[in-house]
Amino acid sequence: MKERLEQQLDFALEIDKEKNIFRQTHLSGHGRNENDAEHAWHMAIMAWLLREYANEEVDITRVMLMCLIHDIVEIDAGDTYAYDTEGLATQKAREDAAKERIYSLLPQDQKDQLIALFDEFEACETAESRFAHAMDNLQPLLLNNANGGGDWREHRVTAAQVYGRQGKTRMGSETLYQVTDRIIQKNIAAGNILSGDETEDRQNTGR
Amino acid sequence: MKERLEQQLDFALEIDKEKNIFRQTHLSGHGRNENDAEHAWHMAIMAWLLREYANEEVDITRVMLMCLIHDIVEIDAGDTYAYDTEGLATQKAREDAAKERIYSLLPQDQKDQLIALFDEFEACETAESRFAHAMDNLQPLLLNNANGGGDWREHRVTAAQVYGRQGKTRMGSETLYQVTDRIIQKNIAAGNILSGDETEDRQNTGR
Repeated sequence: MKERLEQQLDFALEIDKEKNIFRQTHLSGHGRNENDAEHAWHMAIMAWLLREYANEEVDITRVMLMCLIHDIVEIDAGDTYAYDTEGLATQKAREDAAKERIYSLLPQDQKDQLIALFDEFEACETAESRFAHAMDNLQPLLLNNANGGGDWREHRVTAAQVYGRQGKTRMGSETLYQVTDRIIQKNIAAGNILSGDETEDRQNTGR
Repeated sequence: MKERLEQQLDFALEIDKEKNIFRQTHLSGHGRNENDAEHAWHMAIMAWLLREYANEEVDITRVMLMCLIHDIVEIDAGDTYAYDTEGLATQKAREDAAKERIYSLLPQDQKDQLIALFDEFEACETAESRFAHAMDNLQPLLLNNANGGGDWREHRVTAAQVYGRQGKTRMGSETLYQVTDRIIQKNIAAGNILSGDETEDRQNTGR
């Protein structure tokens, strides 16, 4: 049986691997792909900065910690792109196995606490988890918008797909959803996000 | 005059650049150089995990936020390696100018709050800032140790230099300093960190 502190340091070293899990989002300034650790860092600071816009009062410590840990399971499970239908079908099983392996490195009490926090994030039923999800959506939206919508264009993403995901921001923050909606509309108008009509046209003409 | 939310989103986008500021530390598994945003993310989680070892009781929200923002000034000022004597001489002036420019993107109240928190970190006189500094030291130490002390060997770092920096961990956490000391001693014994004697020998023989 390892000592408590040794277990904690083993976990601390293990999560270093999250820096090697890359996302579809690109850094602003048309940079490289972003990794999960940077994304989580960005979300946690944004949560603190923007907490006044949460629909309900939130415990900001819990939101920040939720943001920081929400992608640790991807060390084993990999990043599943928000619009990857096949990946999304197996995501839950992959992430459950990862959750058990990685958090088991910790002492039992901290394992229980962090798994409970991760499960709360996933369930998206509390004020904190809804606001954390709003950050999970808004953060890549800001980067993608700053890059002229390149990530949407690359994946030929439709308005229905973007609204399907970004619409959830509304549960966490009505104000930030208004910002989101303006950004989406601007990118539809610019042709960076495909409107439903365009998708239909493309199918009809075989393009 | 920009609206409050617009200022906050401008700042959120600006700090994305921290992901392009690379440090001397390498990721575990003999990986690439680490960047400031990843380092800050790692420190903030470690602060939460290890808070029970702080010498004095800490407000963990303040510690985590301090960890998350402590390197934002490096977007303009660049990373100054802990053992770079010339860089250290101009670090303060470079970071002061950066602090003023970057935090001025925010609404005045948040600018004041985050500058106060950054200054508190730098002064290292409160329980929270001391524990945050312990994380700032321990996080790269864990990675470097996991990589067989490669970062120390590459820069021919001496025991006096390592103790000069890592010794400050003791102000934040006596327990974590004991871990630190064991890691340093192991790396001196392995020849990864130069002992004072070796440095002297090297000078005497002209090597």
